[in-house]
Amino acid sequence: MTRFDDRLLTKRVVESFSQTPNERQRSLLVELVTTLHDFVRRTDLTFEEWNAAIDFLTRTGQKCTPIRQEFILLSDVLGVSMLVDAVNHREREGATETTVLGPFYVGEHKDMPDGSDISAGLSGKPMFVTARVTAPSGVPVANAIVDVWHADDEGFYDTQRPTHATGDGSLRARFRTDAAGLFSFRTILPCSYPIPTDGPVGELIRASNRHAMRPAHVHFLVNAAGFEPLVTHVFMDGDDYLDSDVVFGVKEELVCPAERHDGAVMPDGSKASGPWYTMTYDFHVRPGTGHLPQPLAAGAG
Amino acid sequence: MTRFDDRLLTKRVVESFSQTPNERQRSLLVELVTTLHDFVRRTDLTFEEWNAAIDFLTRTGQKCTPIRQEFILLSDVLGVSMLVDAVNHREREGATETTVLGPFYVGEHKDMPDGSDISAGLSGKPMFVTARVTAPSGVPVANAIVDVWHADDEGFYDTQRPTHATGDGSLRARFRTDAAGLFSFRTILPCSYPIPTDGPVGELIRASNRHAMRPAHVHFLVNAAGFEPLVTHVFMDGDDYLDSDVVFGVKEELVCPAERHDGAVMPDGSKASGPWYTMTYDFHVRPGTGHLPQPLAAGAG
Repeated sequence: MTRFDDRLLTKRVVESFSQTPNERQRSLLVELVTTLHDFVRRTDLTFEEWNAAIDFLTRTGQKCTPIRQEFILLSDVLGVSMLVDAVNHREREGATETTVLGPFYVGEHKDMPDGSDISAGLSGKPMFVTARVTAPSGVPVANAIVDVWHADDEGFYDTQRPTHATGDGSLRARFRTDAAGLFSFRTILPCSYPIPTDGPVGELIRASNRHAMRPAHVHFLVNAAGFEPLVTHVFMDGDDYLDSDVVFGVKEELVCPAERHDGAVMPDGSKASGPWYTMTYDFHVRPGTGHLPQPLAAGAG
Repeated sequence: MTRFDDRLLTKRVVESFSQTPNERQRSLLVELVTTLHDFVRRTDLTFEEWNAAIDFLTRTGQKCTPIRQEFILLSDVLGVSMLVDAVNHREREGATETTVLGPFYVGEHKDMPDGSDISAGLSGKPMFVTARVTAPSGVPVANAIVDVWHADDEGFYDTQRPTHATGDGSLRARFRTDAAGLFSFRTILPCSYPIPTDGPVGELIRASNRHAMRPAHVHFLVNAAGFEPLVTHVFMDGDDYLDSDVVFGVKEELVCPAERHDGAVMPDGSKASGPWYTMTYDFHVRPGTGHLPQPLAAGAG
């Protein structure tokens, strides 16, 4: 038996993974061990800090439920989610920029007819969204399935509301593009909101004097046969937090104005009781295949 | 707003932690972000791999209970626990070598008189341990509190047995050294055993074709006023797994023979029904103060 030495330890741990049959797994494990060991050596991590990390990770896992994914939130606030997105989309070739999925995607949104009101009677300023899906060339993409979800005017997703258990699914819907690549819906103007701060990630945010805000946005997941799935947001122009999104998700190409209107009749023929908004956005999808995001429940079950 | 770029992303995430009031926390967070981002960039981590990591970490947290700490186990099998131990004990100055605490320390072991039998009637070969606690100079340390715990002859700790709920606490005890620095107890010969493999850590071990075994050992935690707490094991000489401990905890100084005896009467005056063993070990503690390990329940509650 050779005398213990911390460099030798790292070498032995790396070697212990040398029989991993899957080559990619082996390589990731070796990188992980090397990286973690370098971190510990470089920081001279104390026992108290190691204990705190074990405790933090344990509580992060235990905070997860079928509708709450605290590890995704942790990845988000450390910029890791945006970086994974970036290294997987190095070449965009005229396609719309991507951003984080976020922890509130629940998958399998209910199909709604074009033009539907997805606000389910929630209070807020009416907003009429018209969007188009095209190839980078501008050719319309028909029959694209588009999931849409966003927070209400108090900053909560439906899954964060106690009524979720009854399956209200407000501000979530699935549309299908027509022959011109178009789809449209009525909703309410989203607002900036804090990510959930009642868990370990909230502790981290407070301990580092960061704010917990995300600028107002609407999530879109565009999935069309023969094209790469597109996971993105459209951000509301003028928001105070565009430059300091807590999850680092903003890209300038995704910022879009909502145009204010004061007419008495709104696009769906109903009578306005105050100002209302319109927003139009064109999504460009890239030929190919790709990864469809896992709905939340799959990971946190 | 500047155009998105993945290097700029890392820079912005690092900057987001710049207002962390605690200087050490700030520095650890900056190192963590830099390290994690480098890992993602170097490996071109895919979405599937990121999802698998989120799922693995979530399930690791959710496997933890007041008597099971899967994150400590993960740290152990990645060699991180031994490395944290190593960077915190760079200078031993004649003190006994340290090793991992392991996930089975529950703290606050019951006090037992010197010479007690801690085996609580469990089957196994009797072993009589006599140990001494001294300063590096050889001067005895009286009144040191020594926690002892080990697995039974099927490889299970009491906390892994269904009877734990009734508080049997077998093969666990706390002793106090006498004026000569001595303490002694009767127990059973420990055996090599697998770490728990019914959780995510078990999946990792199987996926990498590693074995899950630890060589037979007895845990000791020595805590004396004016001395650094000592967390260590004594390993049984001749064990098959001394060179491939799944948690990398073996140091040659900690390997000790158990001497076999075939006499009819054992040291405690009882009649032998087969071979019995003796083991003696001297622990050297280092003047100072230091971190007392957290019992498991505190981290996993």
